[in-house]
Amino acid sequence: LKYASILSIGSEILDGRVQDSNAQYLCELLKENSISVKNIISCDDNLEEIIEAIEFAKKSIDYLIVSGGLGPTTDDLTREAIAKYCKVELELDNESLEKIKEIFRKRNRPFIECNQLQAMFPKGSQVIENSNGTAPGFHISSDTKLQIFCLPGVPSELKPMFESYVLPIIVKENTNQSKIQKIAFKIFGLPESLINEKVTALQLPSNIKISYRAKFPEIHLKLESSDIPLNDIAESIQLAIGTQNIFSHDLKETLESCAFKLLQKNNISISGTESCTGGMISTLLTSLPGISKNFIGCLIAYSNKIKNLNLGVTEETLYTHGAVSAETAKEMAINARHYFNSDIAYSVTGVAGPDGGTSEKPVGLFYIGFSDKDCAYSIKFFLPSDRERIRRYASYMTLDVIRRYLLGVVQHTDAKMN
Amino acid sequence: LKYASILSIGSEILDGRVQDSNAQYLCELLKENSISVKNIISCDDNLEEIIEAIEFAKKSIDYLIVSGGLGPTTDDLTREAIAKYCKVELELDNESLEKIKEIFRKRNRPFIECNQLQAMFPKGSQVIENSNGTAPGFHISSDTKLQIFCLPGVPSELKPMFESYVLPIIVKENTNQSKIQKIAFKIFGLPESLINEKVTALQLPSNIKISYRAKFPEIHLKLESSDIPLNDIAESIQLAIGTQNIFSHDLKETLESCAFKLLQKNNISISGTESCTGGMISTLLTSLPGISKNFIGCLIAYSNKIKNLNLGVTEETLYTHGAVSAETAKEMAINARHYFNSDIAYSVTGVAGPDGGTSEKPVGLFYIGFSDKDCAYSIKFFLPSDRERIRRYASYMTLDVIRRYLLGVVQHTDAKMN
Repeated sequence: LKYASILSIGSEILDGRVQDSNAQYLCELLKENSISVKNIISCDDNLEEIIEAIEFAKKSIDYLIVSGGLGPTTDDLTREAIAKYCKVELELDNESLEKIKEIFRKRNRPFIECNQLQAMFPKGSQVIENSNGTAPGFHISSDTKLQIFCLPGVPSELKPMFESYVLPIIVKENTNQSKIQKIAFKIFGLPESLINEKVTALQLPSNIKISYRAKFPEIHLKLESSDIPLNDIAESIQLAIGTQNIFSHDLKETLESCAFKLLQKNNISISGTESCTGGMISTLLTSLPGISKNFIGCLIAYSNKIKNLNLGVTEETLYTHGAVSAETAKEMAINARHYFNSDIAYSVTGVAGPDGGTSEKPVGLFYIGFSDKDCAYSIKFFLPSDRERIRRYASYMTLDVIRRYLLGVVQHTDAKMN
Repeated sequence: LKYASILSIGSEILDGRVQDSNAQYLCELLKENSISVKNIISCDDNLEEIIEAIEFAKKSIDYLIVSGGLGPTTDDLTREAIAKYCKVELELDNESLEKIKEIFRKRNRPFIECNQLQAMFPKGSQVIENSNGTAPGFHISSDTKLQIFCLPGVPSELKPMFESYVLPIIVKENTNQSKIQKIAFKIFGLPESLINEKVTALQLPSNIKISYRAKFPEIHLKLESSDIPLNDIAESIQLAIGTQNIFSHDLKETLESCAFKLLQKNNISISGTESCTGGMISTLLTSLPGISKNFIGCLIAYSNKIKNLNLGVTEETLYTHGAVSAETAKEMAINARHYFNSDIAYSVTGVAGPDGGTSEKPVGLFYIGFSDKDCAYSIKFFLPSDRERIRRYASYMTLDVIRRYLLGVVQHTDAKMN
């Protein structure tokens, strides 16, 4: 068995400005590849403190993953600290320097001298390329056989560098480890406690590790086993939870990409109109490359005037039933479909709060409308929560309404059809 | 000045199952009360490893905050480790035992023997009451004057215990401390390296702590000093960086809320039309409660057909200059303003990639359009990056274009006006 420690460098962690999300990400991936993490340590951008932390962390570990402190400013000291710890000099890597200069050229920005620092590495290290920023990482072996990997602290830079460079090295050095079997379920539409109850009732063998993770508004369920085959067990879980509530077995797949794949497969065009979600559904859909073949457009009809004048929801509907109503949601979806001339259309209207709620229409109430060429309907939902969670929930629920329609499965049973 | 370290105990942190959110919370509150955190350390529920971690952490600190490992099971070893470290025995606290038994009675659950463990404390410690769970915490001073506070790992139990017991003690012991002065700058529109160069050129006194944080696409700069007044220095920094590039001194304020405040103050209504950002700007704006008084709506004109038929960008403009062009961006903004009948309007059109780029219009090229009743213009930007960052950058840049317009300050100097 091999061991690792994680060292996160930066005053922004110690003064509480940022959550060290890298550490959890690294622990998760290392664990998946049978590497145990001994310690996570955070320290300041300070030469002696970094070296002391390495001295503490290095005991009986094989890998040290360092994040942060690789920027171009005077408070970035990781390069220097590692060089000092390994008793080598820093030296300039011309190839990296050229790449950094190229980034500045492309961005039409002058290259400033201090950026040269980012092309300095402890002698004997291997440069780890950074495709998403100017700070490359590096990999060096100390005399005690400890391998040190230094990566930038920005998660969007660290993650691809870890996965493309560090992980393959670690995995290669650990190929003889027995592989653990895993099956994951990404679930939408059921509360965690209900899923837990259904899974517990199955009385699975105790050497199957079951773990839950609530990533609002999704629940992720994971089974792990080193000896029992998981296929039959996965099937019984699927039956217990309901296939339609499981949108993927791939933890990296999102609800929006599920919906997109179904749109692609059926060659269906989509449009929408959003009120309380303010464009979040359309932002999620357009995050996917290639969606322009299916997604036509969306009207953020934030005010009643726009719902009426631009989208054509009748004054009568708005006046009689209100902007947050089953009738308005349905009319919004029908009219969006015509306005954008798409095969199907969705709509959302609700009370996101914190103000604007009434006893009849409280904060957290929202309606999702849906329309295709044959029919139109709307569904009522209620989540008493804060503005951000209500908007997020309404957006993901709309994606799930689309997904269920495209799969031809029943809509959410806890919602009333109108 | 007093120092603290944080020790988070538990295998669920090291195997990536949970994010150690307690550490950030504790750091933030300690910092606010002028206590600097030296280290955050996570280790497993293992007697020797806990003691080794304390030995490492205790150097030159006054307070050690320990979280986790106070549960009733055999793998909860924090009590034992602290007793061993302080060279004292564990002893039963009858009052705590009665309280734990009372909780079980109230929950209608049988009291299981192992729960008695939770009423055992290192001799000489002060019990810290837990109103939200069964595990009390404790407070003990080691012979080296180090004060150790042990709290449960569950955030909803740790937080009230920290605030009602630990914090008052720390605050009381530090009332004579001179308060650390802080000034923060939230900067948008300049790269980190250029800011660093400008700040370095000011040759500030070395006892002012300068820290940078890149939170794409913003840069946060912080000055701290315990002796030198920061007002004059802040002014010179402002001059060096350019006041218009600093959108706030409050680290919690966002670019969208800055823009919103200016819209409110000037009683101006806004609308927009988005292509490559797909609704992200409108999602950011509508995240703010009360924005419905100023934000009218937005048309996500993702396809050329919608830009032409629904928004009224002429076929000639789209055909001659292309959908991603200064001319289209400008016409989009003008037409959005008319379509939504708002005081001002913004537009964005660009190539977010990863496909669809050409040598003339590469991935990362985007135009922001702007229009009020008197004039309209568009600005060209280029960020060769991935889809997510391009969309994010374009969205924040649009918010900044709005902010600068409302402030009446110059637009981005590195962008070409059309």
